[in-house]
Amino acid sequence: MRAADTYGVSDGLPGYLEVAGAVRMGAEPDVAVGPGTVVSMPTGGVLPPGADAVIMVEYTQEAMPGTIEVTRPVAPGEGIVRADEDAVAGAELVPAGRPLRAQDLGMLAAAGVTRVGVHARPRVTAFSTGDEVVPPGTAQLRPGQVRDATASALAALITESGGEAAPGGIIPDDRCALENALRTALGSSDMIVISAGSSVGARDETAAAVARLGPPGIWCHGLAIRPGKPTLLAEAAGVPIIGLPGNPRSALVVFRLIGMPLVRRVGGCTKPPAEPVVRARLERDLASATGRLDVVQVRLRDGLAVPVFGLSALLSILTTADGYVIVPEEATGLDAGTEVDVTLYR
Amino acid sequence: MRAADTYGVSDGLPGYLEVAGAVRMGAEPDVAVGPGTVVSMPTGGVLPPGADAVIMVEYTQEAMPGTIEVTRPVAPGEGIVRADEDAVAGAELVPAGRPLRAQDLGMLAAAGVTRVGVHARPRVTAFSTGDEVVPPGTAQLRPGQVRDATASALAALITESGGEAAPGGIIPDDRCALENALRTALGSSDMIVISAGSSVGARDETAAAVARLGPPGIWCHGLAIRPGKPTLLAEAAGVPIIGLPGNPRSALVVFRLIGMPLVRRVGGCTKPPAEPVVRARLERDLASATGRLDVVQVRLRDGLAVPVFGLSALLSILTTADGYVIVPEEATGLDAGTEVDVTLYR
Repeated sequence: MRAADTYGVSDGLPGYLEVAGAVRMGAEPDVAVGPGTVVSMPTGGVLPPGADAVIMVEYTQEAMPGTIEVTRPVAPGEGIVRADEDAVAGAELVPAGRPLRAQDLGMLAAAGVTRVGVHARPRVTAFSTGDEVVPPGTAQLRPGQVRDATASALAALITESGGEAAPGGIIPDDRCALENALRTALGSSDMIVISAGSSVGARDETAAAVARLGPPGIWCHGLAIRPGKPTLLAEAAGVPIIGLPGNPRSALVVFRLIGMPLVRRVGGCTKPPAEPVVRARLERDLASATGRLDVVQVRLRDGLAVPVFGLSALLSILTTADGYVIVPEEATGLDAGTEVDVTLYR
Repeated sequence: MRAADTYGVSDGLPGYLEVAGAVRMGAEPDVAVGPGTVVSMPTGGVLPPGADAVIMVEYTQEAMPGTIEVTRPVAPGEGIVRADEDAVAGAELVPAGRPLRAQDLGMLAAAGVTRVGVHARPRVTAFSTGDEVVPPGTAQLRPGQVRDATASALAALITESGGEAAPGGIIPDDRCALENALRTALGSSDMIVISAGSSVGARDETAAAVARLGPPGIWCHGLAIRPGKPTLLAEAAGVPIIGLPGNPRSALVVFRLIGMPLVRRVGGCTKPPAEPVVRARLERDLASATGRLDVVQVRLRDGLAVPVFGLSALLSILTTADGYVIVPEEATGLDAGTEVDVTLYR
């Protein structure tokens, strides 16, 4: 319609307008709006020539066949969406540095963009080490053997953080075997993870093998985290290398804190997605040493965060937990009843 | 070691024990512990016969070659992890009804479980409707045409919620075409989604086509949500059907609230994963009508949730937002400064 045709109309002084035709969805209008006439159109139709406003059908009534009654003035531009209102030519549709979200794909499709340049998934090679470690498919364990629990869990976390998990296999406690495997992996990996042997000697061997790969070498060996103290951070030939503690629980805790953000970063993600967090009250006191960050697994029950305790190596602490609470470095512990952020496992 | 050999030892009265041999990782011990002797072992090694406790090497010192000095008593069982301490035979390793998490895969691997029965991904067929809708790859739009923005965004949300997205294509505004497409899809889908034409007439046609599919038919048509009012919930031949509003933004908002939980539920997930949420203070007043749930997109800036406003149909509201705030049915609005939960888009 033309907005001017509605100026001054009211319940007491209705305006009457002749319906000159209709606009069909998805087609160019073949009818125009002139003084005293309107054109009917569906939501999302194209504005016909001569029109400068749209009135909702709910605000009109049929006075006689072919003529509508209007009792409410309409402003120019009302009911109209400009073709460039969602995005003007030249505008950034989606920023770089974050994963494409559902609505980003929708916006790209709307703009006719069916191909976009994205960062390659970083290839992360993960090694397990230790003479005692055997593949998960081993039906019968000999005394002293354990199945490789870390490799499949790590692969899931690597995938979740946008990486491509490359299985490196199980390397025996042998100086040359690990060094050779690492050298081979350097050429085909964007990042390397080693779940180190759990004994002191095996840890030293891992560090020695990493150090021999060349500069810059080991950045640090030992983090003020519990669990996760014997973590190794290194770099060789531009490839970041993380040496994880030997026990699966510690390895997974550390990889969530340090490995997943690194995979995202190597994958070009500068705006990492947020973790799912709920607030809860601590069910009991948590002790912690100052200067050390503690990761404490908890279950959620009636708004309470109930710590899951047990020996540090137990995977069941992780499988029965709903998430974890961080006791920061500067705290000497947290009192029962403290409101804490629980980062949820998903 | 035998704990009894350390009873009564102290700094002033050290005990001396002979090292009878060593345990190797991953191998059965070939040496036993007798009175007055110890066996050296790495962390994670198998306890040799005769031993009932382990003392950390850090608490011992070499008195002379082959003999260690102990100044601290050790309790029976100290330093020992029982073989069934992480999971006893017959225990549930991972509960049903939730996605397998990284640590669950680790636990299964540790137990030698390399195959598990899981729920099939529900197959969700998504149709777009409307004479004006053309495929995203259409380079040049004719007047009145829009590219299908909803289909690719919906496919991403279906995948994110554990479903398998089956593209149903674009169905013209034709009574028989939609009904036929729906009938065909019923046989091969666990759930059907229709992003309905945006005009009143097209919405009615969608409802009519769904109603003709048979009992139980339409559960409800219209939800007290904004955006998303014209949502249709139905069921035919045991397949849940959601009719979404025609404009992409409303369709995506409703699908997050209603469609994604339904995909998870159809996929056997009774314990849905938590959404990522952060708390923030509302930057300005939000008005809302009582009895209607409002979904308001926000950006996060310095701990403030800043509403993103614009015409309801604009996808850019979703692409520029960091997440959304829900104004519940019973509220007449939220005041500036209110602490709100922002569910983050990821």
